[in-house]
Amino acid sequence: MLSEPLLRRWIREVQRGRRSPKQFLESLRRLPYDNIGLAKLDTHRLLRRGLPEVIFGEGKTTQQLRRILKRMAGQGSLILVTRLGAEVFEAIQSACPKLRYDPICRLAFRPKRGKLVLSGRVLVVTAGTADMPIAEEAAKTLELLGSRAVRLLDVGVAGVHRLLDHWQLLQRARVIIVVAGMEGALASVVAGLVRCPVIAVPTSVGYGASFQGIAPLLTMLSSCTPGIGVVNIDNGFGAAYLAHLINRPIN
Amino acid sequence: MLSEPLLRRWIREVQRGRRSPKQFLESLRRLPYDNIGLAKLDTHRLLRRGLPEVIFGEGKTTQQLRRILKRMAGQGSLILVTRLGAEVFEAIQSACPKLRYDPICRLAFRPKRGKLVLSGRVLVVTAGTADMPIAEEAAKTLELLGSRAVRLLDVGVAGVHRLLDHWQLLQRARVIIVVAGMEGALASVVAGLVRCPVIAVPTSVGYGASFQGIAPLLTMLSSCTPGIGVVNIDNGFGAAYLAHLINRPIN
Amino acid sequence: MLSEPLLRRWIREVQRGRRSPKQFLESLRRLPYDNIGLAKLDTHRLLRRGLPEVIFGEGKTTQQLRRILKRMAGQGSLILVTRLGAEVFEAIQSACPKLRYDPICRLAFRPKRGKLVLSGRVLVVTAGTADMPIAEEAAKTLELLGSRAVRLLDVGVAGVHRLLDHWQLLQRARVIIVVAGMEGALASVVAGLVRCPVIAVPTSVGYGASFQGIAPLLTMLSSCTPGIGVVNIDNGFGAAYLAHLINRPIN
Amino acid sequence: MLSEPLLRRWIREVQRGRRSPKQFLESLRRLPYDNIGLAKLDTHRLLRRGLPEVIFGEGKTTQQLRRILKRMAGQGSLILVTRLGAEVFEAIQSACPKLRYDPICRLAFRPKRGKLVLSGRVLVVTAGTADMPIAEEAAKTLELLGSRAVRLLDVGVAGVHRLLDHWQLLQRARVIIVVAGMEGALASVVAGLVRCPVIAVPTSVGYGASFQGIAPLLTMLSSCTPGIGVVNIDNGFGAAYLAHLINRPIN
Amino acid sequence: MLSEPLLRRWIREVQRGRRSPKQFLESLRRLPYDNIGLAKLDTHRLLRRGLPEVIFGEGKTTQQLRRILKRMAGQGSLILVTRLGAEVFEAIQSACPKLRYDPICRLAFRPKRGKLVLSGRVLVVTAGTADMPIAEEAAKTLELLGSRAVRLLDVGVAGVHRLLDHWQLLQRARVIIVVAGMEGALASVVAGLVRCPVIAVPTSVGYGASFQGIAPLLTMLSSCTPGIGVVNIDNGFGAAYLAHLINRPIN
Amino acid sequence: MLSEPLLRRWIREVQRGRRSPKQFLESLRRLPYDNIGLAKLDTHRLLRRGLPEVIFGEGKTTQQLRRILKRMAGQGSLILVTRLGAEVFEAIQSACPKLRYDPICRLAFRPKRGKLVLSGRVLVVTAGTADMPIAEEAAKTLELLGSRAVRLLDVGVAGVHRLLDHWQLLQRARVIIVVAGMEGALASVVAGLVRCPVIAVPTSVGYGASFQGIAPLLTMLSSCTPGIGVVNIDNGFGAAYLAHLINRPIN
Amino acid sequence: MLSEPLLRRWIREVQRGRRSPKQFLESLRRLPYDNIGLAKLDTHRLLRRGLPEVIFGEGKTTQQLRRILKRMAGQGSLILVTRLGAEVFEAIQSACPKLRYDPICRLAFRPKRGKLVLSGRVLVVTAGTADMPIAEEAAKTLELLGSRAVRLLDVGVAGVHRLLDHWQLLQRARVIIVVAGMEGALASVVAGLVRCPVIAVPTSVGYGASFQGIAPLLTMLSSCTPGIGVVNIDNGFGAAYLAHLINRPIN
Amino acid sequence: MLSEPLLRRWIREVQRGRRSPKQFLESLRRLPYDNIGLAKLDTHRLLRRGLPEVIFGEGKTTQQLRRILKRMAGQGSLILVTRLGAEVFEAIQSACPKLRYDPICRLAFRPKRGKLVLSGRVLVVTAGTADMPIAEEAAKTLELLGSRAVRLLDVGVAGVHRLLDHWQLLQRARVIIVVAGMEGALASVVAGLVRCPVIAVPTSVGYGASFQGIAPLLTMLSSCTPGIGVVNIDNGFGAAYLAHLINRPIN
Repeated sequence: MLSEPLLRRWIREVQRGRRSPKQFLESLRRLPYDNIGLAKLDTHRLLRRGLPEVIFGEGKTTQQLRRILKRMAGQGSLILVTRLGAEVFEAIQSACPKLRYDPICRLAFRPKRGKLVLSGRVLVVTAGTADMPIAEEAAKTLELLGSRAVRLLDVGVAGVHRLLDHWQLLQRARVIIVVAGMEGALASVVAGLVRCPVIAVPTSVGYGASFQGIAPLLTMLSSCTPGIGVVNIDNGFGAAYLAHLINRPIN
Repeated sequence: MLSEPLLRRWIREVQRGRRSPKQFLESLRRLPYDNIGLAKLDTHRLLRRGLPEVIFGEGKTTQQLRRILKRMAGQGSLILVTRLGAEVFEAIQSACPKLRYDPICRLAFRPKRGKLVLSGRVLVVTAGTADMPIAEEAAKTLELLGSRAVRLLDVGVAGVHRLLDHWQLLQRARVIIVVAGMEGALASVVAGLVRCPVIAVPTSVGYGASFQGIAPLLTMLSSCTPGIGVVNIDNGFGAAYLAHLINRPIN
Repeated sequence: MLSEPLLRRWIREVQRGRRSPKQFLESLRRLPYDNIGLAKLDTHRLLRRGLPEVIFGEGKTTQQLRRILKRMAGQGSLILVTRLGAEVFEAIQSACPKLRYDPICRLAFRPKRGKLVLSGRVLVVTAGTADMPIAEEAAKTLELLGSRAVRLLDVGVAGVHRLLDHWQLLQRARVIIVVAGMEGALASVVAGLVRCPVIAVPTSVGYGASFQGIAPLLTMLSSCTPGIGVVNIDNGFGAAYLAHLINRPIN
Repeated sequence: MLSEPLLRRWIREVQRGRRSPKQFLESLRRLPYDNIGLAKLDTHRLLRRGLPEVIFGEGKTTQQLRRILKRMAGQGSLILVTRLGAEVFEAIQSACPKLRYDPICRLAFRPKRGKLVLSGRVLVVTAGTADMPIAEEAAKTLELLGSRAVRLLDVGVAGVHRLLDHWQLLQRARVIIVVAGMEGALASVVAGLVRCPVIAVPTSVGYGASFQGIAPLLTMLSSCTPGIGVVNIDNGFGAAYLAHLINRPIN
Repeated sequence: MLSEPLLRRWIREVQRGRRSPKQFLESLRRLPYDNIGLAKLDTHRLLRRGLPEVIFGEGKTTQQLRRILKRMAGQGSLILVTRLGAEVFEAIQSACPKLRYDPICRLAFRPKRGKLVLSGRVLVVTAGTADMPIAEEAAKTLELLGSRAVRLLDVGVAGVHRLLDHWQLLQRARVIIVVAGMEGALASVVAGLVRCPVIAVPTSVGYGASFQGIAPLLTMLSSCTPGIGVVNIDNGFGAAYLAHLINRPIN
Repeated sequence: MLSEPLLRRWIREVQRGRRSPKQFLESLRRLPYDNIGLAKLDTHRLLRRGLPEVIFGEGKTTQQLRRILKRMAGQGSLILVTRLGAEVFEAIQSACPKLRYDPICRLAFRPKRGKLVLSGRVLVVTAGTADMPIAEEAAKTLELLGSRAVRLLDVGVAGVHRLLDHWQLLQRARVIIVVAGMEGALASVVAGLVRCPVIAVPTSVGYGASFQGIAPLLTMLSSCTPGIGVVNIDNGFGAAYLAHLINRPIN
Repeated sequence: MLSEPLLRRWIREVQRGRRSPKQFLESLRRLPYDNIGLAKLDTHRLLRRGLPEVIFGEGKTTQQLRRILKRMAGQGSLILVTRLGAEVFEAIQSACPKLRYDPICRLAFRPKRGKLVLSGRVLVVTAGTADMPIAEEAAKTLELLGSRAVRLLDVGVAGVHRLLDHWQLLQRARVIIVVAGMEGALASVVAGLVRCPVIAVPTSVGYGASFQGIAPLLTMLSSCTPGIGVVNIDNGFGAAYLAHLINRPIN
Repeated sequence: MLSEPLLRRWIREVQRGRRSPKQFLESLRRLPYDNIGLAKLDTHRLLRRGLPEVIFGEGKTTQQLRRILKRMAGQGSLILVTRLGAEVFEAIQSACPKLRYDPICRLAFRPKRGKLVLSGRVLVVTAGTADMPIAEEAAKTLELLGSRAVRLLDVGVAGVHRLLDHWQLLQRARVIIVVAGMEGALASVVAGLVRCPVIAVPTSVGYGASFQGIAPLLTMLSSCTPGIGVVNIDNGFGAAYLAHLINRPIN
């Protein structure tokens, strides 16, 4: 954080008459608390959180999205729009020509330039085939943020041996994302087998008493196995974001 | 069902003048539909369902319970009172001197005379130690109804190997009752391993988002493994009753 | 289960030098716990549970379904896809030419060869006409698994005599599946009349305070009549699967 | 309603100078809309609704209750306090010496003088023994309001023949109040058998998925049998009040 | 109820040899409990409940509806199909040519011949304009069953004077049906003004925290004004049916 | 309120024989309680509440809306129709030619003539871009009612400095409306920074565990910061109406 | 807000050498964003929001409360502790000797010195007698903050004339707080009668389907009458705080 | 994982005749899948997950707890019992004499011998004073597992500057645990300020619409700020466990 040196310099400039009191006051007003420049949207999110702002695509109009994309297109950083319909993508594509689209997980994205990949591996595990789009949202997001994603699909607890067959894979992960709908029991079983943190994503896959994801959500929150952090229903993106923060060394 | 022969005999008696029309009419009034004698409470439940009426102890006054027990005490059949507080048991005990009480599962009971035990085994599995009272309610009920109960405790999914260690036990059961609170994932895992029907009992063990048993209830209903029938939260008795009906041959 | 003899033979082969330690180690790795070969999906579900894996059709893409069906088509066992839209069926049909489709209960299926039918009868009872698709899903599934299904439709409690008129049918069943929406009271009434286990299927038929099946679900779980196991809302398939497990003799 | 003649007379008095404009204005201010005198609490509820105000005992302090009772004691009309604890009753009894108390249904009451009983009969039916206090609250309230209450206890649907045995009783009622907890299925079955209106009272008897009365409440609201009006959980008083309004001729 | 005399006559015929035991047995089998002939659907509902069976149109297939209508068309009694889409009506119309359709309240109906109208008036009150279709379902049903319906629309509590302006209308009703969405407060206010029973119909009109009718449903159940019976959300038909039972004299 | 002088004049007219008793009685009947003329819908809402009646557009038929608009078109006061679909607007437009439509917030409106604007400023703050339509509904409504609306968009708590940057704007408001979906935390943060009342509008923006607005609704109701009044989910209009009442001086 | 002049003075002092850069830096660090001194708890809440911090008594230990009170006792401002049990009050009283306690509304308080009372009146209306403690919490809080509170008790909608009788009182309020449990309909009715903002407080008074305040909460949020802001269940304090902010002139 | 070398050794022993086939078979049976020794409870959890099994104290009997503790007392590893009442602790203490107890967070514990502390710091932040016991459960657990816990209490969003004052502390954490009840908004604000993962613990602190923790739970799950993993309500232990897994380097 360079804010304190900057402040000291400004005060010295005021003392020496190089910066007027009015200018100084104006500068202070522009600064967030603790004096770091956070004024404009995406640039500063990157500084503060180490990751750029991601656009939540749902509920935004085509016009709003186009304006945001145009503003971001000129920079070299990652652009990521989540939960975006294919038809909306087509309508906004021209605002950022390098933007690509994955129809399965409904992500639009432009990778950042010169991306480095972290060494830790994030394992993305799904209970059933229908959970795949959410798992793919997580895996794709991980790759765009700079983590290595390993996919392990369709190893639900109805046949727990399918999971046990991948013991080594489970042991080697730095973080595991478990994506499961219906009753969501997979998160508890996986977390009971491993040393690393588990991020659980309930999905709205299922019917009746799974109540669009409430059943797996409660399951995952109430798990008898500690070491699980839960994200919102169908929030593959959020799980990946959290996994990447865990995977990333601090320094 | 002996009602039809009985009816035929009565009609013959009317024809032959041995039974007056008024008597016959009176007899008919006493009969339920399809002409089986179900008039008085417990005797006829036994005939109809093959099992006597069980007393739900909760919410009944001491006076009500005493009156019911006195009426049942003279018969040789099983007496079973569920969800009964210890202090209530003491207050009603004298109404049926042979009544015994199990404070862990809160059952009061008097076994039926000359009980025969069925050959099929019912396995009662619990996820955690705190689920034990409900499991014991199930196991005790099974034994009183005439099934063999085998207990397998504390094999929750946080360490799935504990369950796999009992593979043979699981394979040999005619029915398995899975008792689990918190997230209730055990039912799915067990059902995925066996050939027999599984009865799932969600328990109110847990806190927060397990919502007094709603989380395991939804988990069990939404299970991705077919072959599970769910009973009410904490309903160990109901699970045992259903397991016994499954275990019992029809003839 | 032949795994233990197999293991013994392998150990003898190691002793006699006919199987190298490395080979033996490799074989062990392929085995699930307790040493039965469960490596590939459907073959082993059949061995372990006595019934093949059933495909949950909802939420799977056409492409995913086609790939699964192609892999299963070469085998002689039952193929069953649940909750499948008619238009999806048409798109996948060519992947498994013998697959047929029932548009009422939305099942796609190919019966297993040389099917034997169990002697016990499973009665499928509905409360109203609108519950029929779910009842049909249950009945059809029963027949495909190898149980005899008897249908008894539209005997809801608004006119309880309609049910009592079928006393004999009720008494002769090995298992009864009760399919009911709205308030779901039929399960309690049926279970109170019979000796056999009852499986209750709440349906989403109804409106307002039946909340897409929550009202009958709670009704069935809270039933004052013991002997009822409940499955998920609209889960006719699951009820049939459980009924078949009950109906099937063990050894 | 005598207000209109009264108004006419007042206007005439103004015309004739016997009533000053100011007096008249003052009188109008005291009147509710449509000019009936409703100013003071209990007197006017009696005029307007044909029944006196009933005191909801829960949540009121002893002091508040004593003040209300003292004010009512001097009049000859019915006094009724619902949901009143025994210890509170003892603390307030001296404020209205003729007040009596029923500890089972927690009602305190003083019958009105010279009570006439209506000819129509209100049948109060309960599903189980534990529903009795609520049924008694209904029956007692009916008798205090002036309707004849007939009690029919413990005829739940687990043994539907117990209900059918009382066919004549059911047919002869002007209104039937069905009091049922657990799954509350009795209301549907009763309403399907009779010609008269049915008032359903869900009770909080039960556990787990009956959720303190939510299960029977939803059951009763979603009933497939028309002709049922539902009141609040455990609201025996409200059912009786409504039944009495139905039972009372209009004139 | 003529069943008992009938029975007596049959017994005499058996005594006198005019009815064989086998015939008598057969007759008994056809009878419901208490010996009234209830064998076929609609005929006997009419005998037992005084009103014919009404068809719940939602969720039934065109084919099912056509078959039911054809069977009913030949009889003179009222035909009523509720919650029926306009396009379904067109598809089934030819099965019962005299059937008419009201697109606002989605009722299909054929009045019974020679209908008599009861003297008591049922007032149907709505809170807002958007509640009108449900109110119309109630009013139309009342008229078809034989009660006089009086409509009083758009008198919600946002301007309580609109209601007070109709004091006389309120006082003259035998039953009042209050139809209200959003917060449903109207039922409490109306019931506080009148002597007659009130039937409250919560509607799904509203948004957000009215949760498709849950808010007015809870409001109406929790009303501080006694004398209200609640029916299911949007259940105008059920309210009318209950109102008609109340309005109808017993004898 | 001019009713009392009016009444006095009428009474004098009766005294002087210029108004017959019958006429006077008739006039009284037309008056609401406390004798203010509230007889016709919109005119009197304006007198009583100081604001005209607003039309809730959802659920009303085109025909109903046209009739209401025609009746209002002749008056000079504000016309406002909320939650109106664009296609409905087109169908009703001709009934009130000066009606305009804003497709973003789905309001149809005709400003009142000679509108005065209040001095106090109402700040409308949104958490995210997708909350904008609801915020616009609030801002537009404010302007139509006569308050000055200042918009401050996209200052959600994910970057709290964006909000702090507008400190002066926050301090200068007479009322602040906070519009937020997802977790709705913005209301608490804003209210903690200001001296003025805050009105919180939860929106249905979000997915999964935000449950169509339940999450922000509960958040806002449970806020640890006092000084917040909450309105219904997505109820931008209601927030504006309340803000205007606060902003408006009384007498 | 005096912060900006203060800042200007400091900058001048730095320029003139009377304040060292280090001192200035230190002062800035103590300041919140926008440079107002908010460092220590209660002093600065007073500056920022115009009202001191209020202590939420529930869930705090005696020790925590004593420490907080001791720190506040030395200042002249208002001390207010909400939701405080009588026994806790006794245990903490000595930490702030001038603290008084109201057992009905469970408030502990020490008025601020030299309090001025605002001219606007806040009317606190309750539906029933049992809502009184919450109403009293509101009224007492208002008086301590400096607003005039007028109480109007027991005017629930079961007898709407009781409310209409107080027309003048309603018209003269600057803000009205409506406190109501059970169905909470009073808020809609009151808001429909007045020109001023209404704050609605749902209470947990009631039983069954009022679900500890959920019914009146939903009622108040879904109200068809605009102009209502809702606070948390039983939150009399919060309603008063908001009412005071509305009542207080800004500058 | 040393299992594979062990297995190789055993196979060699079989080859060389030093281990009989029967012994070998027996050893295999004891092993979980993938051949690591997990047979007895706590020893193997430590191997597999790197942390010993923790005892959930709630719902276990004194007798059960004593037996478990006695078995663990002889080993050197950490003993931790969560959610344990003070009176239960006293009753079990003698079974493990070195066990200590913290009454604030209700943990009983015996630190492991020779504990090493990780370098990364875990910041435990609370919104209010009443959230402290849960925060302390987290902090204590962290310290027992081997992470450094830094406490930052009472920085809720009602005064967001209190949080901003600790910018440096926030930036230096490897993981942040946010403990918040009421509306739980703090997690979103904190996560928006930092680079590290945030674990959110909703607490049951609050009343009314916070519904024992549901409000903050939904808030945290629906957060607009990515990078948050949520654990169960009041689950301070679970948050610490997850934080420790994140804090711990892998290999």
